[in-house]
Amino acid sequence: MRLNNRPNNEIRPISFELGFLKHHKSSVLMSLGETKVLAVVSSENRVPAHRYEIGGWLSAEYNMMPGATFPRKPRAISKLRNDGRSVEISRLIGRSLRQAVDINAIGPRTLSIDCDVISADAGTRSACITAGYMALVLHVAELLKSNQIKMKTMEDIILRPVAAVSLGVINDQILCDLDYQEDFKADTDCNLVASNNNQIIEFQSTAEQKPLNQNLLVEMLGVGQHAITQLLDLQKKTLLKAGIVLHH
Amino acid sequence: MRLNNRPNNEIRPISFELGFLKHHKSSVLMSLGETKVLAVVSSENRVPAHRYEIGGWLSAEYNMMPGATFPRKPRAISKLRNDGRSVEISRLIGRSLRQAVDINAIGPRTLSIDCDVISADAGTRSACITAGYMALVLHVAELLKSNQIKMKTMEDIILRPVAAVSLGVINDQILCDLDYQEDFKADTDCNLVASNNNQIIEFQSTAEQKPLNQNLLVEMLGVGQHAITQLLDLQKKTLLKAGIVLHH
Amino acid sequence: MRLNNRPNNEIRPISFELGFLKHHKSSVLMSLGETKVLAVVSSENRVPAHRYEIGGWLSAEYNMMPGATFPRKPRAISKLRNDGRSVEISRLIGRSLRQAVDINAIGPRTLSIDCDVISADAGTRSACITAGYMALVLHVAELLKSNQIKMKTMEDIILRPVAAVSLGVINDQILCDLDYQEDFKADTDCNLVASNNNQIIEFQSTAEQKPLNQNLLVEMLGVGQHAITQLLDLQKKTLLKAGIVLHH
Amino acid sequence: MRLNNRPNNEIRPISFELGFLKHHKSSVLMSLGETKVLAVVSSENRVPAHRYEIGGWLSAEYNMMPGATFPRKPRAISKLRNDGRSVEISRLIGRSLRQAVDINAIGPRTLSIDCDVISADAGTRSACITAGYMALVLHVAELLKSNQIKMKTMEDIILRPVAAVSLGVINDQILCDLDYQEDFKADTDCNLVASNNNQIIEFQSTAEQKPLNQNLLVEMLGVGQHAITQLLDLQKKTLLKAGIVLHH
Amino acid sequence: MRLNNRPNNEIRPISFELGFLKHHKSSVLMSLGETKVLAVVSSENRVPAHRYEIGGWLSAEYNMMPGATFPRKPRAISKLRNDGRSVEISRLIGRSLRQAVDINAIGPRTLSIDCDVISADAGTRSACITAGYMALVLHVAELLKSNQIKMKTMEDIILRPVAAVSLGVINDQILCDLDYQEDFKADTDCNLVASNNNQIIEFQSTAEQKPLNQNLLVEMLGVGQHAITQLLDLQKKTLLKAGIVLHH
Amino acid sequence: MRLNNRPNNEIRPISFELGFLKHHKSSVLMSLGETKVLAVVSSENRVPAHRYEIGGWLSAEYNMMPGATFPRKPRAISKLRNDGRSVEISRLIGRSLRQAVDINAIGPRTLSIDCDVISADAGTRSACITAGYMALVLHVAELLKSNQIKMKTMEDIILRPVAAVSLGVINDQILCDLDYQEDFKADTDCNLVASNNNQIIEFQSTAEQKPLNQNLLVEMLGVGQHAITQLLDLQKKTLLKAGIVLHH
Repeated sequence: MRLNNRPNNEIRPISFELGFLKHHKSSVLMSLGETKVLAVVSSENRVPAHRYEIGGWLSAEYNMMPGATFPRKPRAISKLRNDGRSVEISRLIGRSLRQAVDINAIGPRTLSIDCDVISADAGTRSACITAGYMALVLHVAELLKSNQIKMKTMEDIILRPVAAVSLGVINDQILCDLDYQEDFKADTDCNLVASNNNQIIEFQSTAEQKPLNQNLLVEMLGVGQHAITQLLDLQKKTLLKAGIVLHH
Repeated sequence: MRLNNRPNNEIRPISFELGFLKHHKSSVLMSLGETKVLAVVSSENRVPAHRYEIGGWLSAEYNMMPGATFPRKPRAISKLRNDGRSVEISRLIGRSLRQAVDINAIGPRTLSIDCDVISADAGTRSACITAGYMALVLHVAELLKSNQIKMKTMEDIILRPVAAVSLGVINDQILCDLDYQEDFKADTDCNLVASNNNQIIEFQSTAEQKPLNQNLLVEMLGVGQHAITQLLDLQKKTLLKAGIVLHH
Repeated sequence: MRLNNRPNNEIRPISFELGFLKHHKSSVLMSLGETKVLAVVSSENRVPAHRYEIGGWLSAEYNMMPGATFPRKPRAISKLRNDGRSVEISRLIGRSLRQAVDINAIGPRTLSIDCDVISADAGTRSACITAGYMALVLHVAELLKSNQIKMKTMEDIILRPVAAVSLGVINDQILCDLDYQEDFKADTDCNLVASNNNQIIEFQSTAEQKPLNQNLLVEMLGVGQHAITQLLDLQKKTLLKAGIVLHH
Repeated sequence: MRLNNRPNNEIRPISFELGFLKHHKSSVLMSLGETKVLAVVSSENRVPAHRYEIGGWLSAEYNMMPGATFPRKPRAISKLRNDGRSVEISRLIGRSLRQAVDINAIGPRTLSIDCDVISADAGTRSACITAGYMALVLHVAELLKSNQIKMKTMEDIILRPVAAVSLGVINDQILCDLDYQEDFKADTDCNLVASNNNQIIEFQSTAEQKPLNQNLLVEMLGVGQHAITQLLDLQKKTLLKAGIVLHH
Repeated sequence: MRLNNRPNNEIRPISFELGFLKHHKSSVLMSLGETKVLAVVSSENRVPAHRYEIGGWLSAEYNMMPGATFPRKPRAISKLRNDGRSVEISRLIGRSLRQAVDINAIGPRTLSIDCDVISADAGTRSACITAGYMALVLHVAELLKSNQIKMKTMEDIILRPVAAVSLGVINDQILCDLDYQEDFKADTDCNLVASNNNQIIEFQSTAEQKPLNQNLLVEMLGVGQHAITQLLDLQKKTLLKAGIVLHH
Repeated sequence: MRLNNRPNNEIRPISFELGFLKHHKSSVLMSLGETKVLAVVSSENRVPAHRYEIGGWLSAEYNMMPGATFPRKPRAISKLRNDGRSVEISRLIGRSLRQAVDINAIGPRTLSIDCDVISADAGTRSACITAGYMALVLHVAELLKSNQIKMKTMEDIILRPVAAVSLGVINDQILCDLDYQEDFKADTDCNLVASNNNQIIEFQSTAEQKPLNQNLLVEMLGVGQHAITQLLDLQKKTLLKAGIVLHH
């Protein structure tokens, strides 16, 4: 039995707080059950070398704050290196959100997605992608409104919505959006990043306790697609309330 | 004229949210006008070499989150070093809060004060000290309650309350608790860390645009003492609501 | 048409050179077409903190040598950090090969898998996993033979074989084991790490140019499973020639 | 009783050796009792980003040499980071000496103040500021003489003299310029950086053993101002002997 | 008696494999007995500051791979610093090969010599210089052939051949090209880098167990010169087979 | 003609100041012409892993202070790495002085030789070795006197005296102890580290502008041996004045 009798295929309660930071309208505080992440999008007028004279770029940084876990997580700077997990997740978020935006259409500009986990109860990487997409849309709306990007519509820049959900297998049961107590026990750990129309952006399935067979993997994908549909719907409604309409 | 007609000797509206983090009861989210800081206290059962077989230790880490300012502040790890300002403030917070606690009475244990600035509108270091003291009291209460520290009372460990306020001089006028717009224009920048009975823990006065004369410095100290009294009162009331009584 | 008329579902020519290094019998030089990787397994009598008094550990380091690509790849030390891609792949290799071995049965010992890419023509991460498994088996055989691990059989320690293959989609065609020219053009990039009986250890599918639909993903998985079967067979035969029989 | 019957308000014997280094005329070796510091000023034709097209900059680096203390102090590079104390003092020296010079009048040039403590017997930060001012004057004189700065007088660039002294409280007695034995026992640790006419540049008072009351703080400031007057006089005479006259 | 009855003044069997890497024709895999090194030369169109508007530059990086020794050698990045020995050898290789090439004649270009030790049985630094010279010649031939350097001959750029050999003294006996077992026991450790006509490029003699007298040093130099002649001859023949003729 | 008509085989005027630092009696300030170096020896009660249960160790750190050269040399910590030259020289000093002392006789203790170049006019590495030997003798004398090393004589620990000198060739003329103006022009750069009775500890000869022939090398060695004799004599007399007699 899951906490609060949550059905296996259901995601935890979600809330978004748009414009959470004084200095960044494109900031989103997202709660996913007890998990809280802050996603902020900002931009700089420069691009990495491999994008010179081609277009813009988008990259992400994922960070777990010291108090997000128990015991306290030491800061990256105290060891002079990012832990491997944070590096891996930063790359996943960057890859995923580059699918949301036409980086050739934004000019010589790098969009930075800062994802800080304030409180962790599993599902932090999916939450960061889901909240990051929201902040990205807010930021592009600002760039258009302030004429920093000219002669384009939202749909020229935002190619498709993006959301993510975690999945897992415990005793051959598929669970959607695991909390920490569940995640800890799972045989397989999985993340689905997807868009509308069941388009898959990234799908990762990792054996934790034991390998997985193919049928369960395909079934898990179906459960994930169902959750993504709900997340996309929630994102759309929240943006609509903030006055942003996206036609996809 | 200050924003919202605030009198020169008045601090901005303050709120505290105790137990903000799932994994750390001794976490305090403090708002000071538009400034928001998160202070978390945790402890480890080890001490630095200079405290072996003597007692415990307390240290602090101050960090500005990337979205706290505009433009975005790059993370320390991206340059492989903490910026000097953060190092300086971390040390100030540590020194100040070591005056609040009897580190010889806590056993071989290091208390870590994590101060993360979520949104910055000046006064962040004072806010971190003021909120850090609250989190420290919460943490000591937990250590006592869970018998991790035995046979002691709160007053054995918490020696005195500590709060801090920033002050500044603009055109020979003394201002209390400056916001960023004011801070930017100030000739002198000052911070007072103090306890009850006008006990001074740390007083720093720094010429920014031009030197200060002694009379203004002494006057500024008086304005600061007045603000500290209000802050200590607010801390006491807030802790009382959380069920914690301290007899000093 | 693929280079040398290679069919879409076929892997490139493979060779293994066991015991390539004077000082490490458990070293394997693997060629996969023009890709060459060197995998070496060694062990140390200590474990990370989270494994104290529980058992052993296994971790991997993936490194691209400066001359493996054109232009030359600067060394990690010259920037004082590992590039994110190497960190991500190191973690993938470690996770994958921890599924091959019972880390609770090897005593308080860390197995290090060093994977150095000497020459890169795509598929380097899969090659490292495939060759790493071989080196791991050689190393465990040595540990048993030299009585560093006592009273165990190969099958007690080696839980299952592990191999990996890369897959991709170009113009809705599924290709197996892409070379660099193909990889560069692929819409989707995928890696399958699997064991016998179609057991899936890790499956990652990443949109590069555009998202993928679910049918192609499932089809890709099938192509991958087919290639894995061939790789496992090749591993088994090669180990047999070296006098090592594994009953799974 | 202080060492050598020194009165409480008296500074230790001071000597300056100007032009101590072959390659830098603007180098000053200062002895303050047993404390020895070397201050060197040099300049580079570039400025940090926040000063582009505005003017010059001045920054300082404070470093304790390995043999300055017992036991030996490990070098910063051996831990890949500056210790917090050195960072804090570097910033204090930089802030203090930026009050001595009109950084808008020196052109796009950064003045570097290198302060190395050769031997430490407390008071090193004050000595570095006091000696650093001397080296700064020597350097500006050189820049004018060699026409690297044109059409300016010494007084255009050097705004005011700067000196610093440490103060402390032991058993409610105020001591001026403490040596290490005294510093170690002090309840309060204080530093005053000031100019002529009792202008205060930086005043820091830090509780070490216990908080301070306001009366002692004000009294301490008076003792400090007295010492500063002597230091400024000594600086002026020493520069005069070196042929440099400053009309303030 | 040496291994395989090798006479004291004889070098171990040598083989060169030119063009070992797919992406770098100027790569040389050299075996010297059981020692295996890979030398790769590549170039970049930029130079360090001290060569601006003067000419090109050449630098080298020496690296021992983790599996080259037993026990495994941790990677430089794991300690965030190169070990001192590697730094020292990198500098030796760079200095030595800068004598082979007219860096004023190659344009604003930096030649990078990457030397990776795959398997170490002593003599690695000499092998890297000897193999590095070969790779350097191959690279210059390419630069000329592809017209990246124009209007020059091989002899304009390659000033002289360079080879290196290690020497040692055990019980007052001079040995040439020591293997690890011999190196370990040697009283004196020596390296000779030289060109044709007995021209000495670098000669280093280091007491390991005890100091050396001058007669032995001079005698050792003679033995080294003899070995260098053989190495230069071997280099020349190998390059000739690859179609490269050098008239010195 | 050399500066001050110095003959080619003559070293510059030398002075030693023993016990230069308050906290370290075993500190030596050495002037060699305009070159000034400070050598300090201290010890710690621990040894590196390869010396566990065998004996002690000795290592050296060479550092050029920022004001030692013109233009100013940035500190190692500002680039988060030691420059290669400093690493190389640190190793040379360590190797050389390990020949002076019986590291098996000093117990589980590491002797640290800190060599800081205060002012550089060439010959800094030789000066550091020469001064380092003096500081080493002073330190061993202290260890014996304070009974930290027991039941040993000076001669049990100090095996032989060590001094060093630089040599160079300009226009086929051999010069001893070059200053910077000479060093800059030299075709060959050489350093001799030696003991009494012409025992050679380290001899390095490096082509700078062009290779060297063997006759000049041997002649240079003779000039160096002559200078070493003078240096050893000067060391002995200076130590004698400080009350230290060494019978070799």
